[in-house]
Amino acid sequence: MNKYVYAFAEGNRSMSDLLGGKGANLAEMASLGLPVPPGFTITTSACQVYLESGAQPVELKQQIDTALADLEKSMGKKLGDGLDPLLVSVRSGAKFSMPGMMETVLNIGLNDSSVQGLAKTSRNEHFAWDSYRRLIQMYGKTVLDISGEPFEECIDAAKVRERVGSDVELSVEAMQELVREFKQIISKETNAQFPQNPNDQLAGAILAVFDSWNTERARIYRRREHIPHNLGTAVNVQAMVFGNAGAGESGLGSGSGVAFTRDPANGDQGVYGDYLPDAQGEDVVSGVRNAHPLDYLNELDPNSYTDLMSNMKKLEDHYRDLCDIEFTVERGKLWMLQTRVGKRTAAAAFRIAISLVDEGVITLDEALLRVTGAQLAQLLFPHFDVNAASTLIGQGTNASPGAAVGEIVFSSQAAIDKAAQGIDVILVRRETTPEDLGGMVAATGILTSRGGKTSHAAVVARGMGKTAVCGAESLRIDTKKGELTTSQGEILTAGDVISIDGSTGDVFLGSVPVTASPIVKLFEQGKKAALVGADPVTAELIESVDRLMVHADAKRRMGVRANADTGPDAERARRMGAQGIGLLRTEHMFLGERRQLIEDLILSESIEQNKVALEALMPLQRSDFTQILEAMDGLPVTVRLIDPPLHEFLPDRVELAVKVAVDTERGEVSETDIKLLAAVNRLSEQNPMLGLRGVRLGLVLPGLFAMQVEALALAACDQKRKGGNPRPEVMIPLVGSITEFSIIRNEVVKVIDSVLVQEKMELEIPVGTMIELPRAAITAGDLAELAEFFSFGTNDLTQTVWGFSRDDVEAAFFSRYLDLGIFPISPFESIDTEGVGELVNEAVTKGRAARPGISCGVCGEHGGDPASIHFFNAIGLDYVSCSPFRVPVARLESGRAALS
Amino acid sequence: MNKYVYAFAEGNRSMSDLLGGKGANLAEMASLGLPVPPGFTITTSACQVYLESGAQPVELKQQIDTALADLEKSMGKKLGDGLDPLLVSVRSGAKFSMPGMMETVLNIGLNDSSVQGLAKTSRNEHFAWDSYRRLIQMYGKTVLDISGEPFEECIDAAKVRERVGSDVELSVEAMQELVREFKQIISKETNAQFPQNPNDQLAGAILAVFDSWNTERARIYRRREHIPHNLGTAVNVQAMVFGNAGAGESGLGSGSGVAFTRDPANGDQGVYGDYLPDAQGEDVVSGVRNAHPLDYLNELDPNSYTDLMSNMKKLEDHYRDLCDIEFTVERGKLWMLQTRVGKRTAAAAFRIAISLVDEGVITLDEALLRVTGAQLAQLLFPHFDVNAASTLIGQGTNASPGAAVGEIVFSSQAAIDKAAQGIDVILVRRETTPEDLGGMVAATGILTSRGGKTSHAAVVARGMGKTAVCGAESLRIDTKKGELTTSQGEILTAGDVISIDGSTGDVFLGSVPVTASPIVKLFEQGKKAALVGADPVTAELIESVDRLMVHADAKRRMGVRANADTGPDAERARRMGAQGIGLLRTEHMFLGERRQLIEDLILSESIEQNKVALEALMPLQRSDFTQILEAMDGLPVTVRLIDPPLHEFLPDRVELAVKVAVDTERGEVSETDIKLLAAVNRLSEQNPMLGLRGVRLGLVLPGLFAMQVEALALAACDQKRKGGNPRPEVMIPLVGSITEFSIIRNEVVKVIDSVLVQEKMELEIPVGTMIELPRAAITAGDLAELAEFFSFGTNDLTQTVWGFSRDDVEAAFFSRYLDLGIFPISPFESIDTEGVGELVNEAVTKGRAARPGISCGVCGEHGGDPASIHFFNAIGLDYVSCSPFRVPVARLESGRAALS
Repeated sequence: MNKYVYAFAEGNRSMSDLLGGKGANLAEMASLGLPVPPGFTITTSACQVYLESGAQPVELKQQIDTALADLEKSMGKKLGDGLDPLLVSVRSGAKFSMPGMMETVLNIGLNDSSVQGLAKTSRNEHFAWDSYRRLIQMYGKTVLDISGEPFEECIDAAKVRERVGSDVELSVEAMQELVREFKQIISKETNAQFPQNPNDQLAGAILAVFDSWNTERARIYRRREHIPHNLGTAVNVQAMVFGNAGAGESGLGSGSGVAFTRDPANGDQGVYGDYLPDAQGEDVVSGVRNAHPLDYLNELDPNSYTDLMSNMKKLEDHYRDLCDIEFTVERGKLWMLQTRVGKRTAAAAFRIAISLVDEGVITLDEALLRVTGAQLAQLLFPHFDVNAASTLIGQGTNASPGAAVGEIVFSSQAAIDKAAQGIDVILVRRETTPEDLGGMVAATGILTSRGGKTSHAAVVARGMGKTAVCGAESLRIDTKKGELTTSQGEILTAGDVISIDGSTGDVFLGSVPVTASPIVKLFEQGKKAALVGADPVTAELIESVDRLMVHADAKRRMGVRANADTGPDAERARRMGAQGIGLLRTEHMFLGERRQLIEDLILSESIEQNKVALEALMPLQRSDFTQILEAMDGLPVTVRLIDPPLHEFLPDRVELAVKVAVDTERGEVSETDIKLLAAVNRLSEQNPMLGLRGVRLGLVLPGLFAMQVEALALAACDQKRKGGNPRPEVMIPLVGSITEFSIIRNEVVKVIDSVLVQEKMELEIPVGTMIELPRAAITAGDLAELAEFFSFGTNDLTQTVWGFSRDDVEAAFFSRYLDLGIFPISPFESIDTEGVGELVNEAVTKGRAARPGISCGVCGEHGGDPASIHFFNAIGLDYVSCSPFRVPVARLESGRAALS
Repeated sequence: MNKYVYAFAEGNRSMSDLLGGKGANLAEMASLGLPVPPGFTITTSACQVYLESGAQPVELKQQIDTALADLEKSMGKKLGDGLDPLLVSVRSGAKFSMPGMMETVLNIGLNDSSVQGLAKTSRNEHFAWDSYRRLIQMYGKTVLDISGEPFEECIDAAKVRERVGSDVELSVEAMQELVREFKQIISKETNAQFPQNPNDQLAGAILAVFDSWNTERARIYRRREHIPHNLGTAVNVQAMVFGNAGAGESGLGSGSGVAFTRDPANGDQGVYGDYLPDAQGEDVVSGVRNAHPLDYLNELDPNSYTDLMSNMKKLEDHYRDLCDIEFTVERGKLWMLQTRVGKRTAAAAFRIAISLVDEGVITLDEALLRVTGAQLAQLLFPHFDVNAASTLIGQGTNASPGAAVGEIVFSSQAAIDKAAQGIDVILVRRETTPEDLGGMVAATGILTSRGGKTSHAAVVARGMGKTAVCGAESLRIDTKKGELTTSQGEILTAGDVISIDGSTGDVFLGSVPVTASPIVKLFEQGKKAALVGADPVTAELIESVDRLMVHADAKRRMGVRANADTGPDAERARRMGAQGIGLLRTEHMFLGERRQLIEDLILSESIEQNKVALEALMPLQRSDFTQILEAMDGLPVTVRLIDPPLHEFLPDRVELAVKVAVDTERGEVSETDIKLLAAVNRLSEQNPMLGLRGVRLGLVLPGLFAMQVEALALAACDQKRKGGNPRPEVMIPLVGSITEFSIIRNEVVKVIDSVLVQEKMELEIPVGTMIELPRAAITAGDLAELAEFFSFGTNDLTQTVWGFSRDDVEAAFFSRYLDLGIFPISPFESIDTEGVGELVNEAVTKGRAARPGISCGVCGEHGGDPASIHFFNAIGLDYVSCSPFRVPVARLESGRAALS
């Protein structure tokens, strides 16, 4: 028989899968001997059965009955008893906290008879009837799904009748009248009576909690937090204690509070919390009434306060971490209602971890496991001053974090022009294309009204560490007219100032003040510089981050490289701790002003023209490479030969076709456009992602790869001649078969050899392959015979393994797929370990079997994603490569991965 | 030490990998004791070393010297000897015959001195000097790469001088003069003398043969014949014998001939061949002089004739198959120069195989292995009458075999209209799109000027068994003007009659007479009907094919199903022997007149409109399914839910955008077009192959799949009610994860159950998945938990595993890839066993582990490809599915695969 119900005494905190976080921690507190109101937990697996089959497991009812009997026995009271009734609460409690997302029903056990008993035992008729009307109201809303309005209307009417301002002031008679009215609402709305049998109340409440797992808001929350939809929630049934049993005499009063063993906002040591006399926990959390600092309890009830302090110390010692707790004092007796390892801000996380190390509570290894890359990333971005006044004018996806303020521009060219004048700008587009790259580089931030986290704008912005808000659909952007219409209908034009928060997706009118990140300074300029002028809390934060980074670097097995395409990027990456470049995208060197050169190359009609075009590109590539090799001197620089389809460098086909047709109609069509359109048509592909690109370009267009390799080899010679230690590596993209690789490799080696002979230099330049097609992974054993390294292009691999293109699918069906739980998270954000990851793992195994020790890295976006980094560590990759700005995150997470 | 040289006595016919076909068979004849001029073979591996490294293996020279010394010893003559010289021939001989592709040098060993010796020993000065000038000429052209022209000019001048009409009539003096002149040509063209050292001649000739492996024509030939480029050729060095040593006296004459042990054209029993007195083998093969039937040798030289007959019997008995041979008689002595298992026509192959069975020479199993699916396919197509006069006006790729005659039409609509009037038409387009489908169905044949064997036109035509010539680039097709310009520049217009041969790619002017296939009649109407009025040879062919098909069916393990989308297709498939439908593409039911209905569905703007559109489609789908289930009663019918992206049903985006822009410019734009364009833009995708299609459609568009399943379930109930045994199966396309499958499967099962309840019927309708994405293959173990069958969509799998789209890559780089040997054959034509095949194999293994015995079939185009069928048999698939017309081929090859 499956066990679906656990008494608190039977569980412990390691059982949160089964008992949920709340249940597991209640059990833990009970076993520590803390005063926890007794109760039991119904497991998440009971919920799962219910959610999957639509019916509760058959064994469940019997097990609940038994647990309830035990509870009644231990309390010496019976549910629904007319003289001295037991009341219980029914609360949800999932594995991962989902605050405010799910249901709670309190005061179960009250009915027309037991309310009398409660009035007598509590000697408080008002309290008893108030509790009863609360039960009916909560039950009606939560279990019976009745709107809250009719209940509120009745309360308002009673307040008018009795001429009082708040519920608490209502008379006992008014409460009794409300109970009558509430029962009528229920019978009217449901054609059934409010259940007088407490067991029916309990059963209904449990089902309601189960059902609340799948409300729309819960699903949305889980999607945002990447919590799987199939976990289900546990249900905690617990004897009620009452913080609202009157303020009482000195030392015998009631009240509720929340407390933290340290300050969760900044990590300061020392207890921190709020207390509200004559109140239930909900009243404290909701903030309806102003709470007092904890000391106030000490004044009212020093015994309870001392107990609380001692319990909190016990908890922090036991959990060896910041705990947050909820407690209630009932007539001078302290009850611990909840605890958990407390949430904290990113800054607090780093400070607390190091504090605990210094206090001798945890080791540095443990401290490292207590902080996350996501927290570090938060510390790297500037933030808007939380206290500043601001007007929200729209919201989109938090596509690339940070805070950016600038004048609106609607075109890439305008961004470049304004930036050249030293003006900060926000590039505002419906969506971005590779043509916008120049403008994105120039802008302080990017705002689009279409696309999500994996849209072009988002991916490129994250790669640059540039703030971006994408898919702000409530904004209407008309770039032709040069107008941005806000959610409120106000029209902004170029030059108007806006502020965008890439960490929240918020868009504000005007200039919101920004606080710079001291941690960026730490990485960019070193600890000493960062500490100059820092306040003590910030200084401690800088120290904490620094110590944990040093420890992560000492512990990690994987190297961390950066994806960088320019000298300045490479320099920055190195300052951020990159140990080389894992992906240098040579096509990025073809953008901007050089676009015309590549257009010439594509449109060249003879071998001679082709040669001329290539010769014009060569010195530019060479000087690019020289800058990068200099910045990364002594470290490996993996250069990917040109990858994207050529028509990416040409104008949009539909726009051009329309222009030519309309111009023809007007009798003013240009020969250039006609020629260009012919080329665009010729190069146009149904599925460019699956077309003529990567190694295929190298095989079809003679001279292109050779030019790039020649430029690289010459640049390396330049750097060596200067006394440097250049370590370039040539990476061939989109390889699917050993023959493709072999042909291009031979060409590459020939070019390198001839340059080295001509320059009279000696240099080792390894030639390796990108693994970004399933076939490359499947035949990795063959490839490793010739390839000197593997670099996994997990973006493209994700596209082909799943058969969807990043450009298309996001708008079309990704949100539906996330809703349906087909993905817990976009596989472009975090690697799909079962599909794509499995293939990567297989390829590593095959590659290493054929060439022991072959260097295997990953250079897709996943290289900067914490969960993916842990996976790559587990399957034995040698390094990850990510955008320069993510390098510290990757270092931290690689260190953590090595420990876990 | 590697052995690179084998004397004939050291080899046998099983060594063709190493010795080439010719060398292995010479060795075999030698070991049978047949009179073979002695010699030795230089192995293909020597050639491979040379081709890969650019240098001969170091051991080679020594081994050749030794073999040559042995040869001189056995012949009692020395190469270049001034008195009695040995002459040798140097001939290529690859594993697979490449007739006329590579080089031969004869008469090696002649020089200024040995020519005198030859004149004396042969007592024929004319013969000796003619042989010498032939050597210099061949050597110049072949080894030294000099153009043939200057040599021909000298010969012509000599003929003028001596006033004779042919070379043979030239005087000895003229020959001697030619030798002088030829030597001058060589020294002028190469700045070096013709080598007098016979060893240098031999070494040069051997290298020339090696080099000839990589001539352009050889590469093209291999590409066409799917012969790998890395095999290399062997070289045979053999003592010369001379069929041109004079007609001689009775019984002592010379001559050469070719012969077959049976008639290779139709398979008739009995020796068959040609003989030419006083001639070398080349003269017979080239057809310069008219040869005599073999009997003529019997008249001239009965001893040699008797020897020849006896040798041929020995060879056929030994090889147990038709052999072809080349022989020479030198002064009354018969020499066997070459043999091999002879090529034969498709018809001859079937007749000979069965003849040999009836003669007790081979078993039926062996007979089955002697015929191929490709041969059977040839027999299934009508052919143009080979004797009919015809004017070739162009040539393209033999995209879909057959012979078709009809009037030219340039549009799908014209094809439909003309066909409705009973007129045969050839649909002529630059390329076809799904919009042309109606026209392709209506037409007798399809001709395009763009695209190859895997273009849309080719794939669809093959699927329909319709004749097609594609990519006839020498034709200019202007569909707007309605003009087809022939290779000769002649302009044809709609209504002109042309004939296209899909088996050769030829396009003829006018109506060329066509011969129908008796074998199609055999399959379509049965043996009895096919035999009516057949001549004896045809009757024997019909019997032979029938017996071998019966045997193949008895032996094969794999089932054969058909891909069919309509009732008539299904009926035809069943007649062809299909054991069910492996792929019913429901989207094909949305074409033609129903296109509007799906357009309505796509453009519907509300759930109500959507519902109306679906309800309009339902009865049409139901009646389609009813027809097919009736035609396939008792056999499984696998129905794939709608797969392609929706915009495939809408007009082309560029064309529509241009139309709207131009119409706007003219002030006459229609609201409908604007609305349509908006929808097309909305649905437009960068990479539709990787977009919203298959299961994704089902998950995003509620009701679409449900409508299809409801129609199918209702149709099945109809068929069962009529007393039939419908066996529908529902197949979900483009699945990548178990969750996708599970959600749709639940929907499908719910619809089926509700139909069955409503119709009060019981029916088993399995629900399975297509495996056409790498992720589906990788996670096949998970999928098999729920999927009741797997069907491998190897077309799409090939696209994603290689990362190229069939629509794009063919034009862009496939021909280059074939040239470079990256593919021996397009992976869309024959399955890529190392990549795609490996993944299929893995998925089968994982699927069977999770669900033992799960039915696994393949429904991609590969299901009809012989090599792929053998692979699928080897990895244990349960069935292949292919177009109805390929079903007999698949049956035959499945039978053969089971034996091998």
